[in-house]
Amino acid sequence: MKIAILPGDGIGTEIVAEAVRVLNVLDLKFEMETALVGGAAFDAHGHPLPESTLKLAMASDAVLFGAVGDWKYDTLDRPLRPEQAILGLRKNMGLFANFRPAICYEQLVGASSLKPELISGLDILIIRELTGDIYFGQPRGRRVATDGHFPGAEEAFDTMRYSKPEIERIAHVAFQAARKRKAAGKEGRVTSVDKANVLETFQFWKDVVSEVGKEYPDIALDHMYVDNAAMQLVKEPKRFDVVVTGNMFGDILSDEASMLTGSIGMLPSASLNSKNQGLYEPSHGSAPDIAGKGVANPLATILSAAMMLRFSLNQAAAADRIETAVKAVLAQGLRTPDIYSEGTTKVGTSQMGDAVVKAL
Amino acid sequence: MKIAILPGDGIGTEIVAEAVRVLNVLDLKFEMETALVGGAAFDAHGHPLPESTLKLAMASDAVLFGAVGDWKYDTLDRPLRPEQAILGLRKNMGLFANFRPAICYEQLVGASSLKPELISGLDILIIRELTGDIYFGQPRGRRVATDGHFPGAEEAFDTMRYSKPEIERIAHVAFQAARKRKAAGKEGRVTSVDKANVLETFQFWKDVVSEVGKEYPDIALDHMYVDNAAMQLVKEPKRFDVVVTGNMFGDILSDEASMLTGSIGMLPSASLNSKNQGLYEPSHGSAPDIAGKGVANPLATILSAAMMLRFSLNQAAAADRIETAVKAVLAQGLRTPDIYSEGTTKVGTSQMGDAVVKAL
Ligand SMILES: CC(C)[C@H](C(=O)O)[C@@H](O)C(=O)O
Ligand SMILES: CC(C)[C@H](C(=O)O)[C@@H](O)C(=O)O
Repeated sequence: MKIAILPGDGIGTEIVAEAVRVLNVLDLKFEMETALVGGAAFDAHGHPLPESTLKLAMASDAVLFGAVGDWKYDTLDRPLRPEQAILGLRKNMGLFANFRPAICYEQLVGASSLKPELISGLDILIIRELTGDIYFGQPRGRRVATDGHFPGAEEAFDTMRYSKPEIERIAHVAFQAARKRKAAGKEGRVTSVDKANVLETFQFWKDVVSEVGKEYPDIALDHMYVDNAAMQLVKEPKRFDVVVTGNMFGDILSDEASMLTGSIGMLPSASLNSKNQGLYEPSHGSAPDIAGKGVANPLATILSAAMMLRFSLNQAAAADRIETAVKAVLAQGLRTPDIYSEGTTKVGTSQMGDAVVKAL
Repeated sequence: MKIAILPGDGIGTEIVAEAVRVLNVLDLKFEMETALVGGAAFDAHGHPLPESTLKLAMASDAVLFGAVGDWKYDTLDRPLRPEQAILGLRKNMGLFANFRPAICYEQLVGASSLKPELISGLDILIIRELTGDIYFGQPRGRRVATDGHFPGAEEAFDTMRYSKPEIERIAHVAFQAARKRKAAGKEGRVTSVDKANVLETFQFWKDVVSEVGKEYPDIALDHMYVDNAAMQLVKEPKRFDVVVTGNMFGDILSDEASMLTGSIGMLPSASLNSKNQGLYEPSHGSAPDIAGKGVANPLATILSAAMMLRFSLNQAAAADRIETAVKAVLAQGLRTPDIYSEGTTKVGTSQMGDAVVKAL
């Protein structure tokens, strides 16, 4: 089992270090190799995703990714900016299925913007398609408008698109995830989010998801417009179980959903391809403002490592152990500053890592 | 002053009737003419936006619009569905500037999903571009993919696009709105929401908005990615003042923002063209489930009529009077079921209209 370790920028190095420690205390044999990515790779090699890093990632069973980005790279040309590394990894590895759980840990209910009764017990899963849509659609660029409101004016444009097999495969992922959740006692329902009332792409999306849904008679399927989904997440987040949507809408809704919990520092993510090769990263960013201070919350990254064990490395038991250890540490009252509240014990990044290692 | 009254479907007829009563008790001379739109127009004329309705709207200074849509039209071909009337009015009237205030009324703080301290005093303005972007961009449709992940497969596609003058004019609207708010004692800051890290269209958007911003040295400008904006609205909605964004992102964020208040039945909207002709409608939908029961909240529509007086009919004093009357009615403790809470008095649609008329 080979794991590529890509810590990246900002707090990335600190939080990934803790996840690696956690992996190392499991009685499992991994080959781990570390490489630069994002701004750190740009500084060293002039590119956010150097050939060597990409090669390592492609040759690994899984990638454990920290975070990328820093304000100091904001003035670079877009192809050289840190976040292009993420897009490059997704595209080259074919990581089309993004899993973004939004879970509210009982001890952290108070961290949410939402009233406790609306958020307590939240456990929803946003599945975002990750290699299609307007993110990669061609053509795109700038040109002189030949029609529209101002023919002759300079304009910029992008292409949104989804093909039938792209929609089918992410729909299967969603229905299968719902089925697993149902087997585990959850509702097991898929809400497909679209904008079929306006977009050709998402009328097609809706049609294809409905078709695929017929193969899963045990799983309920409903459809919701993206604007309504953005509202319902605020109004009644627990009405959702599995949400499946495209790359652009998923970008927005998965971030909204994770912020609902108020504890985005706890939320892992997984991005998988059809061979179950995956990239695992926390849902939060590189937080350059607190980088190097030893205060970042490593739990989202540690939980991402657990997802990695379960999805890509076939080590579900080890994944369970990590998740249990994280819950134990929360129960002990240990909190990094992002999730701290009165009456709990404030700890730093490595103390939090220590505690998880000890709980294991 | 000519007003086209387009009640539409569902609760549309009930709530617009109350707004018309309110307009009628003002000492102003309007010519009002009513026409069918949406599903009601489809039933009568076979089209959601009959030629006669469009002509009336175009020939009026303002349109007072209720809401359109009902599940029973869901199986119609897209061009015949009720919401196409909205898109047709926007396009034909050139209503490019959509104003969506998200205001939390002090007496209704409890209706929000958010904790009171996060939402109390909220008063932000989302300005959404309404005639460009992926809503109207050509080409769009279905075809056989020639490149991408599955060449040869059936695919659907849409075109996102913005030209420079389209971005400039909505940016000016936003900066001018911020300036007015600043003069009225508010912060007066513009947050432009984009996805410049991924989309050509929104890199261009960001560049052009920044250019326009130089003409408003008194107004602060910041930029935020749409995924982050969706998060920040949940985390700390009061950090925003004026938000300006494109049609698609604005659709999502303006709905998210209005749901934050928990009292979407209170929120008006305005859509203006460059001649200050405008369409005014509540932020909520046609709510077919409660249509005809006399329980819908008419206040968002009544407040939309106030916006109409201010923006299109040059009657700011009358607009102020209506807004004061609405506040008085809330202070009296009158509530339709959507905003009802213990200790207040539950009233129906027409009783609420009566109360506003009386307060005037
Ligand atoms: C950094 C950016 C390109 C990326 C995206 O938009 O997909 C990020 O927001 C994410 O969700 O992982
Ligand atoms: C009905 C639909 C076409 C419309 C839109 O997407 O613009 C609606 O959601 C709105 O925001 O007014």
